[in-house]
Amino acid sequence: MECVPNFSEGRDLDKIEQIVDVFRRKEGVKLLDYSNDRDHNRMVVTAIGEPEKLKNVIIEAIGVAVRVIDLTQHQGEHPRMGTVDVVPFIPIKNMSMEEAVALSKEVAQIVSEKYQLPVYLYVKSATAAHRENLAAVRKGEFEGLADKMKLSEWQPDFGPAFPHPTAGAVAIGARMFLIAYNINLNTNNLEIAQNIAKKIRFSSGGLRFCKAMGVELKERNIAQVSMNLTDYTQTSIYQVFEMVRMEAQRYGVSIAGSELIGLMPLEALVDTAAYYLGLENFSGQHILESYL
Amino acid sequence: MECVPNFSEGRDLDKIEQIVDVFRRKEGVKLLDYSNDRDHNRMVVTAIGEPEKLKNVIIEAIGVAVRVIDLTQHQGEHPRMGTVDVVPFIPIKNMSMEEAVALSKEVAQIVSEKYQLPVYLYVKSATAAHRENLAAVRKGEFEGLADKMKLSEWQPDFGPAFPHPTAGAVAIGARMFLIAYNINLNTNNLEIAQNIAKKIRFSSGGLRFCKAMGVELKERNIAQVSMNLTDYTQTSIYQVFEMVRMEAQRYGVSIAGSELIGLMPLEALVDTAAYYLGLENFSGQHILESYL
Repeated sequence: MECVPNFSEGRDLDKIEQIVDVFRRKEGVKLLDYSNDRDHNRMVVTAIGEPEKLKNVIIEAIGVAVRVIDLTQHQGEHPRMGTVDVVPFIPIKNMSMEEAVALSKEVAQIVSEKYQLPVYLYVKSATAAHRENLAAVRKGEFEGLADKMKLSEWQPDFGPAFPHPTAGAVAIGARMFLIAYNINLNTNNLEIAQNIAKKIRFSSGGLRFCKAMGVELKERNIAQVSMNLTDYTQTSIYQVFEMVRMEAQRYGVSIAGSELIGLMPLEALVDTAAYYLGLENFSGQHILESYL
Repeated sequence: MECVPNFSEGRDLDKIEQIVDVFRRKEGVKLLDYSNDRDHNRMVVTAIGEPEKLKNVIIEAIGVAVRVIDLTQHQGEHPRMGTVDVVPFIPIKNMSMEEAVALSKEVAQIVSEKYQLPVYLYVKSATAAHRENLAAVRKGEFEGLADKMKLSEWQPDFGPAFPHPTAGAVAIGARMFLIAYNINLNTNNLEIAQNIAKKIRFSSGGLRFCKAMGVELKERNIAQVSMNLTDYTQTSIYQVFEMVRMEAQRYGVSIAGSELIGLMPLEALVDTAAYYLGLENFSGQHILESYL
């Protein structure tokens, strides 16, 4: 199982270290990455491990964050509603989505009781359709939480029906592995990147499991289509790549390159090669490393 | 380390089973595959394991083959000079080519003494340039071995200077991982496949680490360019694919699909995706499974 908790602290290196350190030297758990952003004032940790062991580490890390981060003092560009803003659990291998959902609910119950923290279940763990989307759950942010929680449709799933005074609330849930993938264009025209993003993303008529936005890379003086593929088993990387190429042609723009942020599953790589080489009966079983 | 020994028996299932069984239930060694071909009267075993443990299993398997296969009774389409025809060792992970060469020489010495078997070192282990290529070492086959060994340039590297009466001689050496890759054409014209193969293979002016031939797939009624990529780190899969496509265009023929025979290393897959998606700074470290 993988877990990618987001903490609302991107500046104070001492606090960051206290949280990250929880993930180190834990048997059966591996800290893959952590990155903090000053502008966003936020930190994202990536860890994998055996479900039960990772669960315990996450509960411990949430406790540390609730103790050291005071959201009443927090400012940053990224929207947030809690010191621990969101905790997604991702089944990776030999684990079903149902098992990940069950585990996320366990964690929700434990941390709500242990830390007096209201919890919203989201994505695959959501208890109602209007709670699946994190943006909807988080709308109003920390400052609007007290009012929001008075509404019957926004009662938390676990914990008190009022925000934690310094930690707000947290969204916990199980979701698919998400691929963060960006395509760089041979233009510095942001509007072109925005127009392409609009055509390929689900929300405005594009591919079902694609979120996209246009961004400007000022240092490189180019525009980029920045994407999240929320189910790579259904919406493929090569599909978004070819569709961006298609749309870019309208503007006489070509693709300069692309980049993967973080990790992608082997299956997504296999899918890409199988498409471009027209490989017949190809799978991860054909990769030598699968046997090491 | 991987080892892919070729045995000159593709018909007698009892003998095949005796050889293959040596690879089973051995700690530190995994039998990945074995396939025997009646027409070729030959069997190829694919096994991986820790170098020392795999070495011992290979020595044992050679002993069984020398005991059960009588090459004086052998007929088949595939050229061969020994009951154990060729034993390539391939370094896979945390092993250098030099270490694989050293191990191949150890095995050569041991089997030459233990089974009175003349051994030629080939590919990276070869002691002279004219012995690197297996086809040159094997030329004349089992029936021509006695005369060939009388020539000073074809003295074996280990063992007696005359063929084993029923087992002939064996070629042993270390080599790069080899990718067997075939591209199917939208035509049943064998000549077109042969012409394309000629343009892309090293021996007639093509890519340095590409061997290729045109073959006819009678059941599917199509022609195929059948290839071995002998160093995928230098001659890439996408290069041969794009070059076959280019050549096929001359004949108004397109690519119907392609197929991988056996395994390919993750790095070759990464290379393919990086090319087609224009991925920047992409490597096996971006694949989730690398951390499991």
